[in-house]
Order: sequence, then C-alpha cells, then structure tokens
Amino acid sequence: MIRSIHESPLYPIINPKSIAIFGASNNFMRMGSMMLSSVQALGYQGKIYPVHQKEKEVRGLRAYGSVQDLPEVPDLAIIVLPTEIVCKTLQDCGRKGIRSAIVVSGGFREAGPQGAALQKELQDIANRYGIRFLGPNCLGVANPYLRLNPTTITAEGPPGFVGLASQSGSFITQMFNYLHRHGLGFSAAVSVGNEANIDIVDCLEYLGACPHTKVITLYIEGITRGGKFVEVARAITRRKPIVALYVGGSEAGRHAGRSHTGSLSGPNEIYDGVFKQCGILRAQTLSELFDYALALGTLPRPRGNRVIIQTHSGGPGATAADACGRAGLTLSPLTAETVAKLRPLIPRTASTANPLDLTYSLNSTENFFNIPDILLEDKNMDMLLAYFLSPGIFVDRILREMGVAEETIPAERDKMLMQHADAFFSLVKRHPDKPIVGFTYRSLQENMVRSLLDRGVPVYADPERAARSMAAVLEYYRMRDAISKSKSVKV
Amino acid sequence: MIRSIHESPLYPIINPKSIAIFGASNNFMRMGSMMLSSVQALGYQGKIYPVHQKEKEVRGLRAYGSVQDLPEVPDLAIIVLPTEIVCKTLQDCGRKGIRSAIVVSGGFREAGPQGAALQKELQDIANRYGIRFLGPNCLGVANPYLRLNPTTITAEGPPGFVGLASQSGSFITQMFNYLHRHGLGFSAAVSVGNEANIDIVDCLEYLGACPHTKVITLYIEGITRGGKFVEVARAITRRKPIVALYVGGSEAGRHAGRSHTGSLSGPNEIYDGVFKQCGILRAQTLSELFDYALALGTLPRPRGNRVIIQTHSGGPGATAADACGRAGLTLSPLTAETVAKLRPLIPRTASTANPLDLTYSLNSTENFFNIPDILLEDKNMDMLLAYFLSPGIFVDRILREMGVAEETIPAERDKMLMQHADAFFSLVKRHPDKPIVGFTYRSLQENMVRSLLDRGVPVYADPERAARSMAAVLEYYRMRDAISKSKSVKV
Repeated sequence: MIRSIHESPLYPIINPKSIAIFGASNNFMRMGSMMLSSVQALGYQGKIYPVHQKEKEVRGLRAYGSVQDLPEVPDLAIIVLPTEIVCKTLQDCGRKGIRSAIVVSGGFREAGPQGAALQKELQDIANRYGIRFLGPNCLGVANPYLRLNPTTITAEGPPGFVGLASQSGSFITQMFNYLHRHGLGFSAAVSVGNEANIDIVDCLEYLGACPHTKVITLYIEGITRGGKFVEVARAITRRKPIVALYVGGSEAGRHAGRSHTGSLSGPNEIYDGVFKQCGILRAQTLSELFDYALALGTLPRPRGNRVIIQTHSGGPGATAADACGRAGLTLSPLTAETVAKLRPLIPRTASTANPLDLTYSLNSTENFFNIPDILLEDKNMDMLLAYFLSPGIFVDRILREMGVAEETIPAERDKMLMQHADAFFSLVKRHPDKPIVGFTYRSLQENMVRSLLDRGVPVYADPERAARSMAAVLEYYRMRDAISKSKSVKV
Repeated sequence: MIRSIHESPLYPIINPKSIAIFGASNNFMRMGSMMLSSVQALGYQGKIYPVHQKEKEVRGLRAYGSVQDLPEVPDLAIIVLPTEIVCKTLQDCGRKGIRSAIVVSGGFREAGPQGAALQKELQDIANRYGIRFLGPNCLGVANPYLRLNPTTITAEGPPGFVGLASQSGSFITQMFNYLHRHGLGFSAAVSVGNEANIDIVDCLEYLGACPHTKVITLYIEGITRGGKFVEVARAITRRKPIVALYVGGSEAGRHAGRSHTGSLSGPNEIYDGVFKQCGILRAQTLSELFDYALALGTLPRPRGNRVIIQTHSGGPGATAADACGRAGLTLSPLTAETVAKLRPLIPRTASTANPLDLTYSLNSTENFFNIPDILLEDKNMDMLLAYFLSPGIFVDRILREMGVAEETIPAERDKMLMQHADAFFSLVKRHPDKPIVGFTYRSLQENMVRSLLDRGVPVYADPERAARSMAAVLEYYRMRDAISKSKSVKV
C-alpha cells in the first residue's frame, strides 16, 4: 500500500504540470486532436507540448518536431499514434527522461498474438527507462479539479466526489453528461485499457488516497492481480466505500469483455465472494453503480434501517414502501408524539401511517420544512424518503390565475421554488445524522430538484433506485464493521 | 365480457359529449376548479356545465344553480364536493337522468366505518337510478384523443397507446410528463379510487376494446372480483398485452396500500399465480411497467431470443451483453456472410463478435443505416439492440472546427442528426419483422433519440431496461401461446 498519494505511479499522470502530446494535429478528425481540444476546452493551466513531425503549430500551440526538442522534461506523455510507432515513441520519451505516459493507441494484446508481442515490447521499454504508463488501448484520465480532460469528449458539470477506475474508456468520456444529470461528478477517472503497466489495483490505491474522492467506483471485466486487489480494497473500504460493476459473470458479458480488452473473467460467484471479502458493494448495472455512489457520497451513516416515507400521493407512497420492503428497509409507525406534532399541520384527509400521506395540500412551506422536520425527530426513524412532485407545475398555474403577468411568472415561480429548496436543504444541516433522500417521477433537471442535487441532496428518478441506494449505504457500513472486527481479531 | 366498447359503463365516462361539473368555482385553489382548468387547457370540445349555487359564471362558462336547471341531460357528472353533500348530489343527478358519474371526493371507505356507511349509501343511490360511477376517492380519467383531462394536472405530450387503470390517481395525473419523456402517451387512463361501482375489471374490459390502446397497464393494490378479473384478462391477453404493477405483496407495500384505498391485498405469490394464469406480465416498479409497455406497443413479435448488439464502445456493449444475458436473451455470433458484408464498412479495429463493436468511427451514415441493415438480415438474429451516443456532441465540435459560423451550428447539427434519425427509422420499415431497440446513457430528450422515440422506436436510458423490456415482449408471446393452446384443449 502506498502511504501517500504522491507515491502512486498515477500521481503524475492525473496531476501533471506539463504534458507532451503525440498524435494531435491540425486535422480535428484525428483522435489525438480531439483529446487536445478537450484539454483546451476545459481550461487546463499546465504546459502543453504537441509533438508533430511537420506542423510548427498545433491548435494554436507551438509544436515540436521531436520529443528531444522539448524545452523541459514534461511530467506526462500522451501517445495517440498508429500502433507501429508507439514503441519507438515511448523509447524516445524514456530517453528524454519522461517517466509517466498514457498510451491511448490500440492494436496490442486485444488485437491477437502479434499485438500481444508488441505489448510485451512496450512493457520492456517502460521497464528499461523506469516509465509507468496507463494503457495501451485506453482513453486516458480525467481530473476535473485540475481542469484536465485528455479524452475524446468535452467535460460537463462541476467536479465531484466520484473516483472511477474503468476497464472501459467509454465509461469515462461518455459519463460526464450522465453524472452531471444525476447530481454527480468525477473527482478523478482513469481508463486502464489493457493494464500493461499500471492496473486497476494501482487505481484503487490512488483513489483511496485521493482527497477529492469520497466514493470509488469500478467498472471491471476481469481482475488479474487478485491477491493484491483484495489486500488493497480491504484496507480502503474500512474508511472509503467502493462500488464495483462486474460484467464478466454472465456468458454474454464474459464474451463481450473478452473481445473488448482481452481480459480474463470468471464466474459471478467468484467475484461475489471476492467483493464481499473486500467490503465492496456490487452493482448490477451502470445506473446502479452511480446511484449507490450518490447515496454513499452524500449521506451520513444511518443508525438503522427504519425509513419514514413522506408523500402527498398514495400511489407513489405505496410504490416507495414496496421498494423499501424489497430492499430490506423497514417502515416503522410514527410515534404518538410525532402524530400529535403533525396534526395541526396536515389536512384532515392525511394518513398518519407510514408512508405519511399528506394528500391534497398546497401548503408547500409545511411540506418542505415543518413536516419533514418533525419526522426527522421521530425516535423510530433512521432515514427519510420524500416524494417530490415538482410544485412548479402548480405554482405556474396559480400565479397565472392570480393575474400575474405572463412574462414575470418564470422568475416568480423560480424564486418560490428556490425558497422551498432552501428550506428542505436546511433540514440536512439541522439533522446531520439522518440520511435524507428524495425521489420524483419528473425530470431531475426541474428547478427545485436540480437545486437539491447541486447541493448534495440525493434525489432519484424512481423510488426503487432510492430504496436500493439507501440499502447499499447500510450494507457498506455493515461490511465495514465486519472487516474492522475481523482485522482486530487477527492482530 | 362486453362485445363492444359502447357496452362498457366506462364508455360515457371516458367519451362524454357533455359534462356537468360540481365543485368547480372561480377560486382556483379548489380541486374542482383545477380539474376544470385542466379540461379547458387541453381543449375539450364537448359541452361543459359548471353547477354552482352562487356563481353565475365559472371560469368563463355559464354556471347553473342546480343540476335541474341544466338545458340538457349531460353524459357525465363530475363531483368534487365536500363528502357530506356527495350523496345528495348524486341523487339529484339521478333525478335529472344522468347515468354516468365520476366521484372525486374522498372521505368514504378509506376514511373508516362512517365513510364506509356513506359509500354504501352512494352505491344504493346509484343502483336506484341506474347510475354507473367511478370512485369515490379517485382522480378521474384522461382521454387525450378527446382532449379530455379532468385531473388536477395539465396534460403534456401527444396521445399514445398506453391504457392505464390505476388504483392510484397520482399515476394518471403525475405521469403525463413521465410518459412523454419516455416516448409514451396515454390512450385512456382511469383512476378507479375505491371502486364502489365501476372497478378495475370494468376498466380491463374497456381498455381491451379500446382501439387506441395497444398495451394495458395496471397499477394494483388489491383485486376484489378475482374470478371475473382472471376471465376477462385471459380473454384480452390473447390479443393485447397487459402489464401489471402490484405493490401489495411486501409487508411495507401492503400496509401503504391499505391506508391508501382501504383495499385488501394478498401475498406476492398469489398475485404471481393469478397474473401467470392470465398471461399478464408483472412489473416490479413503475418504471418497469412503462418500459415494458413501450416495447410491447412498438415492437413486432420477435421470432426468437437471439440479439445482436451494435455498439461503438466496448463498455456499453459489454454492459448490454451482460444485461441481455441476465434477461434470458442470447447473443449468437454473426454469420460469416454478415461479417463479409460488414468488412468494407467497418474499421480494422472493430470487433465482429457479438456485440459488434465498431470502435472509433465517425462515419455516422454507415452506423445508422448500412451496418444495422446488414445485421438485421443476419439469419442468426431475432432482435437488434443499438447503443446511441448522441453524435451531436461530435458534430458540434466538428462544425466549429470547420469554421462554420457559431450561430448556424445548431441548425446544421440538427439537420444532420435528423438525417441520421430518418435513416435509422427507415430500418423499422425495411425490417418489419425484426424488433429494433436502442439505449443511451445520455438524455432521451436529445435531438436524434427524441426523434426516434417520437416515431415509435423504443430507446431506453440504460441497457438493462432495454434488455428486460425485450425479454418481456418474448414472455408475453410465450404466455399468449400457452393460453391459446390451453383454451383450444378445453374446447
């Protein structure tokens, strides 16, 4: 295990002060050019040295004819060249003194025996010069905190707390938009490709030590250094959650993974066992991977599995209750004290069972602050799950009916919704030990919910996803306790 | 079983030529006013008669002091009044000759013994006057084809093919937006409330006969007329799919349902058995209910369970393969003939396994027409599952790099994306016997995918949802065949 993030071979790759890029040109249709363009678009502040045999300038930057001509030894080389000249280029980098690289180019082990031989040559060169490298056949890294995104797709949204190590490059480049829409963002993301030098275990070590990373997510098609993986993961999960999506388990997934990165995969049961031993939560789908990450990165540790559901509609309340039941959460009845406190605030038709169904009510202030505030004080509850129907759809109509001028309605409505969001958000601070989760069937991008997501209140597109994520948080702490105990027994 | 939709007691309720509404006023904050406002907003063309003791005009419509004063006998009465005066009002309607009603008001069986007595009184009045009514404690109906939406929330999106009968009113009013975002729309939706007169079996019969309804969806907290339900459902599923979400199975769901509509629910296993016997697909969540409906209402009958996955990214391909495997779909290898036809069109780095991974390629025309066209002719395949990364995110950048003026980029990009959408859509017509399904991790509202959804090509937000929905279509036809056979044996 590394003792500091600076010891990680990934440190200079994820936090370079200067980069040499091979394969970027003034032809935008080349992959290297796109990657450089993404780096420029996000506003990376370090030095960038394009290396190009012919161009004197690449995308507005001074270009160098060879790596030897560079005015300094850059922290990192990014190589996006035809397979045939990759080894030679890495060797030149080594001679220059470069000690870190990302090899994006494909055509290595994943391409058959000839490619495998080429990959061996690449590894030998790296060993000779003491180079640590990511790839080949990868899509690089993203470090939004450094405004660094050498991938083919432009980044979206602010930095976040999700660390990702992925055996698919797509799940970095193609997830910026997904994560942002779901209230998340990367702290750091690494596409490991063929793992010829740096592997997923190195990524785990880095992300375990990364201060921006609150939750580690893994996309795995197969693990090679199994023993080391378990050792490192077990050490990390004692203080930081890890969620893994492993797709090599089904016949179809195994086959797909093999042709993708040429990795070896094993039966589901073996991976289930490994993950449990490590305290790693297993996600079945990519959505679940990030759903769990959202809850794990935002919620405090629940004291237990008792949920109170707040709703103003019976159906959504019942589906949420059903989802909680299936996820292993329980719905305790509200205490008599809670019911007494609620009575003056709720309509006569409301059900004070759990779910608390407020029924037809337009007093949003009560709904978004006073009522959940009372629920959060209930001594029989550990977590709150609240249903959000965007009040905006009523507010617009009400303002219109009140004769408010059409052009001022959006601003008026937004003001009101932000007040609701502020009120609800203040509950998180008032009850720091009680997880608060929301769900809605409307778009997560609607005003009030979006504002909650932006402030780290998890809101899900469906009660099932919310309930499973809440259960995942409980499960993480259960496994963590078990690991801590077993450790202390051994010592 | 009804022989014609006109025999259904729901026919005049869902297709009224004239409506008397009780409880709408010029105070918008009243529920009845909101419902009338929604009706007006969608542009219902029938006659509307507000009945109000004091107002001479309600929301711009001439109001009548009592039902006796109406100039004609309206097809339908909608009652949104305080509980205490509901029975009296229904009686007045009966005297006037009105034979159909929606009782929105709550405070009946769901409110305890006193309410139950009141509900009995309501039933007696209806029986006396030959009135068929929906409710009480319901949110009415929606018939987008008639531009009729007497619910509390304004409708969104065009009419569709999803018939819904729901024991939760919220799942009508609060689903317009959800359905539209997911490429769906209601053909007709009915909130059954306490089912004091018309029940979910009547809804099944109506929706079974409704020509706009291609798929029937049910939200169930408990069924009372079990025998009749089975008889009707079995008759319908032989020609039209039914998907049901039942939430009374878990302890938590059962409890929530009971306090919601006061319905009796039973163990999951019993409902599983009933649904199987009827050929009804069971959904576990609301998302799944509508996911299945989308596939069932848009796809042709698959000849088998063999899927080809088309992707340009390994990770999404592998997650899709894994999802297919778990859903019971198989991925057969492409035939040698298919591979030979593909070779000239695909990059050297592409994998011609299944998933077909096109890898890095910007030739969108091939991706969206020529390549899937070849795959759809493969004799080892029954269904196509295609991954969509919005090409828009590349097109914008490329146009910008080409020096296209910033203000013309959106129009240029949209034109290009519509061409792709048109090309892909034309495959549906060229291969009418092969289900074509898409998935994306980007927003379903992005240009190209939205255009496909609008034309009835199912695209899902996740490969898991796509695979499960494809499997649901297979399962529907399997059950349908079994029912047809068992029927013929009996005869």
